[in-house]
Amino acid sequence: MVEMSPIHLKPPYLLFVGDEHRPSYAKTALGIVDWRPDSCAGQLRLSTEAVDLGLPDLSIDNARARGVQSLLIGTALVGGAIPDVWLDTLIAAARAGLDIIGGLHQRLEDVPALAAAARQSGARLIDVRTPPEALPVGTGKKRSGKRLLTVGTDCALGKKYTALQLEKEMRAEGAHVDFRASGQTGIMIAGQGLPLDAVISDFLSGAAEMLSPSADDNHWDVIEGQGAIFHPGYGAVSHGLLIGSQPDALVLCHHAGRTHVSGWPDTPLMPIKDVIQRNVDIAALTNPAVRCVGLSVNTAHLGKIEAEAYLADLSQVHGLPATDPIRFGCANILQALEVTFGPLA
Amino acid sequence: MVEMSPIHLKPPYLLFVGDEHRPSYAKTALGIVDWRPDSCAGQLRLSTEAVDLGLPDLSIDNARARGVQSLLIGTALVGGAIPDVWLDTLIAAARAGLDIIGGLHQRLEDVPALAAAARQSGARLIDVRTPPEALPVGTGKKRSGKRLLTVGTDCALGKKYTALQLEKEMRAEGAHVDFRASGQTGIMIAGQGLPLDAVISDFLSGAAEMLSPSADDNHWDVIEGQGAIFHPGYGAVSHGLLIGSQPDALVLCHHAGRTHVSGWPDTPLMPIKDVIQRNVDIAALTNPAVRCVGLSVNTAHLGKIEAEAYLADLSQVHGLPATDPIRFGCANILQALEVTFGPLA
Repeated sequence: MVEMSPIHLKPPYLLFVGDEHRPSYAKTALGIVDWRPDSCAGQLRLSTEAVDLGLPDLSIDNARARGVQSLLIGTALVGGAIPDVWLDTLIAAARAGLDIIGGLHQRLEDVPALAAAARQSGARLIDVRTPPEALPVGTGKKRSGKRLLTVGTDCALGKKYTALQLEKEMRAEGAHVDFRASGQTGIMIAGQGLPLDAVISDFLSGAAEMLSPSADDNHWDVIEGQGAIFHPGYGAVSHGLLIGSQPDALVLCHHAGRTHVSGWPDTPLMPIKDVIQRNVDIAALTNPAVRCVGLSVNTAHLGKIEAEAYLADLSQVHGLPATDPIRFGCANILQALEVTFGPLA
Repeated sequence: MVEMSPIHLKPPYLLFVGDEHRPSYAKTALGIVDWRPDSCAGQLRLSTEAVDLGLPDLSIDNARARGVQSLLIGTALVGGAIPDVWLDTLIAAARAGLDIIGGLHQRLEDVPALAAAARQSGARLIDVRTPPEALPVGTGKKRSGKRLLTVGTDCALGKKYTALQLEKEMRAEGAHVDFRASGQTGIMIAGQGLPLDAVISDFLSGAAEMLSPSADDNHWDVIEGQGAIFHPGYGAVSHGLLIGSQPDALVLCHHAGRTHVSGWPDTPLMPIKDVIQRNVDIAALTNPAVRCVGLSVNTAHLGKIEAEAYLADLSQVHGLPATDPIRFGCANILQALEVTFGPLA
């Protein structure tokens, strides 16, 4: 019997940025530093021009001496293969016994010298895009504990950061809470999770069940959503995650002013009211009491007064608290959670 | 650029049943003989006790001489590995240049001697459980031609055979029609298709789009459904198939008297009315004109009079034609199709 479990990373990390000088290509590394500063022991840059994460520059030996467990590749690659200029460093780190963590298109295992170094030292090569081989089929059985899932009118509009901000503020209020990552960047930030979009369809809701296991009655899992239920490409991923998460609460994420599915210019977004209703309808299979408790809107491109007016209007139309969590925090959503589900702590 | 296409098998087949003497374990072979007799040149049995498919017993040499292109393993295996007693035959067939077609848990490629024989002769080893590596993301773009998808109140209640019977009768009426297989047995019967339940979630609706490509306006694809939209384990597969198929017509399949999800004794089936509505709601994303045109019910365990009464009652309650297609044919559903979509031929 193979033990089934999500991906687990070992912090603290040495964040590797190669010679990447464009911050937008080092978003993953910057995100980890933002959300999990305590997991970041240092950075390793191959050039002084490379993005500075604001962490100590560490050699592999120094990192080892400071207790670093893993080298985490925190940059995106546009092409396919791992650059030759990275290889010496990655191999040296694996040889020194550091787990190598990546989310690249080329699998780390497929680089023979790296695979050999890891085998020799016992280091793990972890591709966060690759789900574990053993996954269960969804049972639909009720699990203990409480769950909040972020859903969206579209992809790429803040489901992950909404969940992270909710977790942060709930924890600050004294709640027992865990962010549950369902995508590769989220997994690198959380140090664990499952890349649900890469799971074989038959095991999708089962993987989502594994992602948020039974917990104490007063414990909250805040689960990162994937896709969007009305998305022509990724709707099925959202469906499996909804069923498997059996959420008590949904927070609907939106991008102010977005009218069409990003990358699908012929597909208009569905009205927010319909998106909420469809998500509730599908989630009700495994949790008939599910309800939407708030709206999270990316308003980064609006002025402050404009954003506040937009949110106030949205809140009134839908009868739900609305916020831009990164800009204004989530106090109103937390309040709604407490009204519905009782004190967080 | 990798060419993207469904799995394609090469008939005629030599059907291999090993030494399997239990007909229920040779269901796949029996199904192929039933639905595609013209594709079946002969059978190869390792014992006179083995299931007799009613085909000529052929050696590999005889099969070659008669133009056979593929050896198709038509039995299920309970354990994991391919039995040693099969290996000599499979290797000899591969060496003779026959494609080997299987749907077993152990991959044919993973048997070194078989892989070597196939490499040498140029034969293909085809696992119908393994989808092609290159699959697109769903676009949601409207394709030409007409599509009917079978959906279900549950799994394993006749979605495949309903689709096959519909195809057969539509063809007999002169329609341009193709059965589109979405599961392994269906693929073996049809000679092509995609095992959707084994597709990575992100590519599910894209694979479903590839399965029923653009066609002439008067052409029908009759698509084999997968899972069930209210299924706690497999609902997401149904969702992706619904979106990607963009069906014009749905036929809902049911098993008379089934009250709970098969294998999920704590999960009651949803009412037929709700199952129809949910399927229509989800499919409407890519085809707002979708409608349910009939009910297909497995009544094998009922007496004829009882079955007829059951179907008449169901038909009246839902205002739709109802039949057991294997027992009573699909004339009433074909009639409903013609009323809604015009003459089949």
